[in-house]
Amino acid sequence: VKESFVLALDLGGTYAKTLAYSPRHGVLVSTKLPSRVDEGPTRTLARLAAELKRVRALSGAPAALFAALGIGAPGPLDARRGIILKTPNLSGWRNVPVAAALGKALRLPALLDNDARCATVAEQRLGAGRGCRDLALLTLGTGVGGGLILDGRLRRGPDGSAGELGFLYLDRAPDAPRCNFGLPGSLEALASGPALAHAAQAGVRRTRRGPLWRLCQGRPEAITAAMAHAALKLGDASARAAWDQAGQALGLAAASLMNGLNLERLILAGGVMAGGGRELLTRARAVAKAGSYPQAYRRCPIVAAQLGDEAGALGAALLALEAVKA
Amino acid sequence: VKESFVLALDLGGTYAKTLAYSPRHGVLVSTKLPSRVDEGPTRTLARLAAELKRVRALSGAPAALFAALGIGAPGPLDARRGIILKTPNLSGWRNVPVAAALGKALRLPALLDNDARCATVAEQRLGAGRGCRDLALLTLGTGVGGGLILDGRLRRGPDGSAGELGFLYLDRAPDAPRCNFGLPGSLEALASGPALAHAAQAGVRRTRRGPLWRLCQGRPEAITAAMAHAALKLGDASARAAWDQAGQALGLAAASLMNGLNLERLILAGGVMAGGGRELLTRARAVAKAGSYPQAYRRCPIVAAQLGDEAGALGAALLALEAVKA
Repeated sequence: VKESFVLALDLGGTYAKTLAYSPRHGVLVSTKLPSRVDEGPTRTLARLAAELKRVRALSGAPAALFAALGIGAPGPLDARRGIILKTPNLSGWRNVPVAAALGKALRLPALLDNDARCATVAEQRLGAGRGCRDLALLTLGTGVGGGLILDGRLRRGPDGSAGELGFLYLDRAPDAPRCNFGLPGSLEALASGPALAHAAQAGVRRTRRGPLWRLCQGRPEAITAAMAHAALKLGDASARAAWDQAGQALGLAAASLMNGLNLERLILAGGVMAGGGRELLTRARAVAKAGSYPQAYRRCPIVAAQLGDEAGALGAALLALEAVKA
Repeated sequence: VKESFVLALDLGGTYAKTLAYSPRHGVLVSTKLPSRVDEGPTRTLARLAAELKRVRALSGAPAALFAALGIGAPGPLDARRGIILKTPNLSGWRNVPVAAALGKALRLPALLDNDARCATVAEQRLGAGRGCRDLALLTLGTGVGGGLILDGRLRRGPDGSAGELGFLYLDRAPDAPRCNFGLPGSLEALASGPALAHAAQAGVRRTRRGPLWRLCQGRPEAITAAMAHAALKLGDASARAAWDQAGQALGLAAASLMNGLNLERLILAGGVMAGGGRELLTRARAVAKAGSYPQAYRRCPIVAAQLGDEAGALGAALLALEAVKA
């Protein structure tokens, strides 16, 4: 069997990550650069095509042995046709045929999929989900994304939109916190980075005291999730309440997923986990345990992701490789 | 190909339903009798074995052409080993090897599965889910059960416990209504028959007036879901509030399932749907539409089940037939 190599791109709203990968050698080269999506699709894609060519050359592997290009990007997107639809994280991009454009530039078959789904595949094959045939992953960042692997297969669904686990509803009150789309009570509204920041801001506006009040220099609107996490470590009560809210929401979502799907692993990933993940895990586990069938809970450890911010590109590489081999 | 016949039993806490079925002839005979599970497993199973023999004879098909026995029962159960574990709906039953006992009595290979999952299979093959490869069913009764068919296959999961959709969490408040197990905020706590009754009772205790107050003759503790439905049709405000709560909860659960799984159909079944189903559907659809991706909502009509209370036995028959043919 001839060794196969694959190129991959994880196109985020802020950064683009690229890599060259082979099953035998692992990641040969990886790069991270500002994605500058505000320049518009044409210029951005031309720059990224050049970067991918550079990465291919740097890998040392002959260009002829590269079998495919995998691309991860924020949804909603049309994976079948390789098109990025309209998405809040790539503003100004709409109906952009990313797979066709980059595939042509690199002369490779190109596959596009949702970035959270790509990360799910990578964690299952190479990270926190190794050995599991049934798992869910939640990415906690600007939004909350997700992915599901059931019976060993990535769940896509009839329209390819499966896995939007940020839109599990956990609070039916009309005045519940709202997500980026303005909907109240979703997991995204309770456990994303902005959700943590908003909850901490609301606490500080009431108390006007404590470590977070000092850190934000009396300007609650300046509080970010990262600042709130710094205050959490100083014992701030408003930050504590924000983390409790997010951890509880994650625990209820975890219980719902375990009860409904009978999973073997729930993986928490994303930038929010990088700062404050341990506290979220502790609370989420306790809440999930109280709300799930004992057998379902025992079967399904809740764990942190292991592959860091390379997971998206790595999963895109794995999916692209599988697609050309199939 | 020789014609195959199959026997089936749906063992409920109150009634047992039996039938004889063949793919070519459909349901040949069906019966419904009190299950009298309080007599204990030995006597109950002996009576049901006799009833199944009677049904087989009544079918007119030669006993030798019966290929299998399918059994549906309330969970939690061990489908792989055919054992009913401890369950609130069959009180006093614990670790009862139902499949082995009835299979031996009838000299047939016997298959046991969760009753809600059986109903899901029946509705997909012969009822409200025909033509769909991706669907969920919710049964609204004393509890809330569920079933999932994904990519055309019944979702069981590694322990066979998948489909417990009554334990999706929709209210994170600690003082949210509680389910039969005492857990707050689950779909079961908001949309089961007892949940409707409790919500209506609470309303009447506050107002002490209106059609429902008269129907219950001033004794709110006597209010059942059926009585509340009668009051709903008379325009009672407490009953209206109870139905709004359940319909909203169903809509949020529907949105969560559509967003997470990308389904083609959501089917609402069970005794609660028989009385007051139309009102629940209307509210659930509006709430689900507001809370889901437009594409996911358009793809997934929310509909009432079509097979009535024969669905469980019919699905058990279909699953048993598939198992012996596989």
